[in-house]
Amino acid sequence: MTFKIAKKDKSSSARLGRIETNHGVIKTPFFMPIATMGAVKTLAPRDLEELGAQIILSNTYHLMLRPGVNLIKRTSGLHKFINWSKPILTDSGGYQVFSLSKSRKIVEKGVEFSSDIDGRKYLLTPEKSIDIQLALGSDIMMCLDECVAYPCKKEYAAEAMERTTRWAERSQKSKIPASPAGRKNQKSESQALFSIVQGSVYKDLRLESARNLVNLDFDGYAIGGLAVGEPRKKMYQVLDYLVPELPENKPRYLMGIGKPEEIIKAVKKGIDMFDCVIPTRNARHGVLYKFKVKSSKLKVRLFSNSENFYEIIRIKNKKYKNNLSPIDPNCHCYTCQNFSRAYLRHLFMVKEPLAQRLATIHNLSFYLEMMREIRKVIRG
Amino acid sequence: MTFKIAKKDKSSSARLGRIETNHGVIKTPFFMPIATMGAVKTLAPRDLEELGAQIILSNTYHLMLRPGVNLIKRTSGLHKFINWSKPILTDSGGYQVFSLSKSRKIVEKGVEFSSDIDGRKYLLTPEKSIDIQLALGSDIMMCLDECVAYPCKKEYAAEAMERTTRWAERSQKSKIPASPAGRKNQKSESQALFSIVQGSVYKDLRLESARNLVNLDFDGYAIGGLAVGEPRKKMYQVLDYLVPELPENKPRYLMGIGKPEEIIKAVKKGIDMFDCVIPTRNARHGVLYKFKVKSSKLKVRLFSNSENFYEIIRIKNKKYKNNLSPIDPNCHCYTCQNFSRAYLRHLFMVKEPLAQRLATIHNLSFYLEMMREIRKVIRG
Repeated sequence: MTFKIAKKDKSSSARLGRIETNHGVIKTPFFMPIATMGAVKTLAPRDLEELGAQIILSNTYHLMLRPGVNLIKRTSGLHKFINWSKPILTDSGGYQVFSLSKSRKIVEKGVEFSSDIDGRKYLLTPEKSIDIQLALGSDIMMCLDECVAYPCKKEYAAEAMERTTRWAERSQKSKIPASPAGRKNQKSESQALFSIVQGSVYKDLRLESARNLVNLDFDGYAIGGLAVGEPRKKMYQVLDYLVPELPENKPRYLMGIGKPEEIIKAVKKGIDMFDCVIPTRNARHGVLYKFKVKSSKLKVRLFSNSENFYEIIRIKNKKYKNNLSPIDPNCHCYTCQNFSRAYLRHLFMVKEPLAQRLATIHNLSFYLEMMREIRKVIRG
Repeated sequence: MTFKIAKKDKSSSARLGRIETNHGVIKTPFFMPIATMGAVKTLAPRDLEELGAQIILSNTYHLMLRPGVNLIKRTSGLHKFINWSKPILTDSGGYQVFSLSKSRKIVEKGVEFSSDIDGRKYLLTPEKSIDIQLALGSDIMMCLDECVAYPCKKEYAAEAMERTTRWAERSQKSKIPASPAGRKNQKSESQALFSIVQGSVYKDLRLESARNLVNLDFDGYAIGGLAVGEPRKKMYQVLDYLVPELPENKPRYLMGIGKPEEIIKAVKKGIDMFDCVIPTRNARHGVLYKFKVKSSKLKVRLFSNSENFYEIIRIKNKKYKNNLSPIDPNCHCYTCQNFSRAYLRHLFMVKEPLAQRLATIHNLSFYLEMMREIRKVIRG
């Protein structure tokens, strides 16, 4: 993987760049639709291609439980299994173990947890997570980390952060084994590895985490442990002091963020990569996004007033019952090009599965269009 | 609407024909995917176009309850509301009132029923059903009928059949009002009207029903009240004596049928039109269809051995866990061209909505391909 910065914004820390992977180029800053279990909910790969998705995110945790890594190995990787030819980023499983599993125990070796599905016990270690991600063949792999909740006592935040660093080092060693002959059939060279900065909202811990990980020299750096309940103000504070500690020439990934205005603020603070369930989950609940201005004027609006460039349409609201306009008359997505708000509302009210699909297409179109516009703003 | 027979099969009563409507030509015999509430579950119009669907079926009963006929009127009809440009057949609501509504009362005027949704009381009359179908703008409308359960006492079957005839007459009068100036803005001339033969499994009642309706001269004739619990043998007996009573030069529609082998048997007995929830409902439960022979050999197999040309794949079965073949390697649908049984099974096991969609695409592809092959057999 290579990363090149093409342009820097004059009035902010935003950067325009490109990541080259074995599965193609990704223009930064970008947003990754989430294909947790190997599919973006309600969408097929060709829908994502039509929307212009550059890369999707899948989860090691979910895929190791079902269908299991052996099957994906047998199909020579996730790309082929799910029939997606563009880049894939896989999360390490750390966040899911933290958020999903009822009974889990963190030890130095890794995380012990019981499957939500059948209660079976698993031990996920940094090495095992890398092994699985190598088998999945993702273009960007993540190190197993320990994500702490908010609020978190400083003592424990420090402990978790230090363990995250040790796990990152073990992940790295696991990816590039001492003897190259020892691990055949692993395309580890073409798979990038990112580590994850932790440290809750404690400045000294965050900075220490960043320095330790930067010393180990990863392909990119993620910021984890945010959007876990802290006030948004604190998140921006973390970015303000943390991003300058990260190397200029490596991609920066803010995990699990966020709302449109949060993405824009984070881009301005120097973040290149985003993922979030918000657009797809909201879509499935009939909560839709619409730009307040036409695309041609959006460019001006975006960076100058990042809170005020879009509105929310709750399509199940009675006021849309007879509304024959598309969600957004300026949107080029399949949904807006073909269906009215009234029809979409009808589909939601009668619980037709097509409702969630059409809404998902539109919301991802909004997010991906927003990212294209952000890149235009930086390009100048 | 016009109907022309192009060819008759030599060894059976099957006919090849074409129905011309204002929304295009439909080749007969054909199968209608069911878009009960204005969408084929999980599919968008372009999916149906890609599959080669010629016509879809929607339900007056469901659409009158939600979103209500006023909204559809406002969009100038169902085609525009759901963005489907090919023909639509609308059922009259009779069958749904019979099968869905908890409390209903049949009187000479029509059917009184309570909505399943909000308990509101409705009176559906033959005239009202036609009014709604005229507003929907469907290419083929159905007369309100009274469908009786199986078994049904002959006395009641006779009563219901006679009422169905009277209602058919009222429907016809309602469609073509005495004074043409009385009903402006109704494209009734371009909308065909079919009546429905009833009479349960009683030969004399069925024949009487057919003669009465044929005397009234409809655009086509449906056979209703079958597949309501009677042994399949009895259904074929009804077809054997009933079809010869129907006019040669009018389309014949067997309502709510059926399994692949039932469709083939009915085609051989002279039926031109079919609808059924089986392929789409089965798809949503992971029950998939596969031809036993290649398309090139299917033609020979179809009519000669109509029970033995396909198999059922229950994709959730563990035996498909590691099966990397498509459902049917000879199938041209999007699902078979892009995904393995193992992936489809995985999607079903983790309850990804894409599972039902990919399965629906495949099962409809099977049904529509079967109809194309049937037409080829008749063409000779």
